[in-house]
Amino acid sequence: MNRLAVGIDIGGTNTVFGLTNRKGEILFEESIRTKDFANAEELIQTIYDLIPSNHKTSIVGVGIGAPNGNYFTGTIDFAPNLPWSGVIPLKHISEKIFNISTTITNDANAAAIGEMVYGNAKDLKEFITITLGTGLGSGIIVDGKIVYGHDGFAGELGHFRVTPNGRTCNCGRKGCLETYASSTGVVRSIHELNSSNKAYSKIHKVTSPQAKDVFHLAENGDLFCLEIIDYTAEILGNALAEFTTFSSPKAFILFGGIAQSGEFFRKKVNAVMEKGMLSIYQNTVEVRISTLHDKNAAVLGASSLVW
Amino acid sequence: MNRLAVGIDIGGTNTVFGLTNRKGEILFEESIRTKDFANAEELIQTIYDLIPSNHKTSIVGVGIGAPNGNYFTGTIDFAPNLPWSGVIPLKHISEKIFNISTTITNDANAAAIGEMVYGNAKDLKEFITITLGTGLGSGIIVDGKIVYGHDGFAGELGHFRVTPNGRTCNCGRKGCLETYASSTGVVRSIHELNSSNKAYSKIHKVTSPQAKDVFHLAENGDLFCLEIIDYTAEILGNALAEFTTFSSPKAFILFGGIAQSGEFFRKKVNAVMEKGMLSIYQNTVEVRISTLHDKNAAVLGASSLVW
Repeated sequence: MNRLAVGIDIGGTNTVFGLTNRKGEILFEESIRTKDFANAEELIQTIYDLIPSNHKTSIVGVGIGAPNGNYFTGTIDFAPNLPWSGVIPLKHISEKIFNISTTITNDANAAAIGEMVYGNAKDLKEFITITLGTGLGSGIIVDGKIVYGHDGFAGELGHFRVTPNGRTCNCGRKGCLETYASSTGVVRSIHELNSSNKAYSKIHKVTSPQAKDVFHLAENGDLFCLEIIDYTAEILGNALAEFTTFSSPKAFILFGGIAQSGEFFRKKVNAVMEKGMLSIYQNTVEVRISTLHDKNAAVLGASSLVW
Repeated sequence: MNRLAVGIDIGGTNTVFGLTNRKGEILFEESIRTKDFANAEELIQTIYDLIPSNHKTSIVGVGIGAPNGNYFTGTIDFAPNLPWSGVIPLKHISEKIFNISTTITNDANAAAIGEMVYGNAKDLKEFITITLGTGLGSGIIVDGKIVYGHDGFAGELGHFRVTPNGRTCNCGRKGCLETYASSTGVVRSIHELNSSNKAYSKIHKVTSPQAKDVFHLAENGDLFCLEIIDYTAEILGNALAEFTTFSSPKAFILFGGIAQSGEFFRKKVNAVMEKGMLSIYQNTVEVRISTLHDKNAAVLGASSLVW
């Protein structure tokens, strides 16, 4: 029998879901708008209805990645970017509708497990996935297992403070890593970083410039954009050096938006990390780029929770 | 049969060893000067010879805590504070002499396991022990097990950098936590911290003042010493808030020299940590003081590796 997993990635804008087999092949995939649903029951029911009937008997489990998804409680707790408020008993809802075991975790943990099952960490039992999107998420793997902490909330490295009295964060504190190292952070740097090259940058000719515009211009020699990338790499690379003192991982795996520029960014982050590293760790920790970018990483990550 | 563990704590000055049972009762204990021995073989042989013959048949294992002790390799690797250089195959040496299984780890990890087996973490599976001695050591427990990392070198939180371009550390880098939060760090603060109260402090009347003198004077109203303690607590408390984003522990357990001042220091560290904490962690993480201070923690920690 062909055993299939349902992977559901709930995002603030879209919810992507699909069916995968143990090899990571996606047999079916679909995207719906999260905000079109009045509550989570309607969303999950619609997903169930949209899955082709001929596959339904092959489903062995459901994996859901969601912002603030809690592995222990099976709930989404007060996710600021989702349209539904409060504590949502998503595991319970999914198990009622699918009538099968459901595992929930946050999106960054799902990405880390996806990396281990299908991606660039198949050879690793000690690594940390850093997801660089709107914010910065992290999934920490120790001895082949996600670190959840006592309450399911471990791995919030986006809120690790890197600069005393630094940039104001949505969390109400200052200097959090994600205010610098994320797509949003890179865009903030366009406005907040000062440089003698700033006035001559082509970034000001772009309407509503995004992080990818900064990377594109930097790779094409725009000095101010290059300074932004160096600044971002400096902060992220040093943070990785600090994280190493914690769990001594074999690798950091960068995933998402600004990681997709690949070697250009990876090399810079790696160089800063090595320079800042405690001597016992030097030349022992790799910085890798996720290999899930070309596949549907969100669905794969969520579905990998099943295996 | 009475099952006994040998616990050996190798320090730069003294090596303390003893015999304990599963309840943590110490049946025999002795201290010898580490520097009196030309090599580790002689040290371990002497320990073996000093253990009373009538207990030798009850020994079920040997646990050794040592600076730079590596759990995976069973070696001590380039420990700067020990008289023997290079890589020392301590597990091999001990197993040859005792003819019984030996477990080695660094002193801070041994303290963390000791806390879980005999001390103030018997109820916990998620916690971090912070040992505040000459330096700052850490033992990180996730899901009831020590986090070793890919190479056995996880948990070097003393070298987590808290201040950009801060105090110079023995490791060659700057701003490491242990240059502030340790006995040595507190003594440095006497010289390096500026304050209008400095000139009037009684600490200057103490010959070669130690951290305990600073604590004693602070508790008796010396304003400059109080500022030093507040400064130390500020840096340590904020560091604990950062560490929480990593593994979301249920508690931090403070052990060693400056932790022995007890509630006075604990309350300050706890208050700073809470103030700096990401909201999802607020009021969920305890700061505890080790309960092993009145026992022989070093021997207990090392022997707990056996159980």
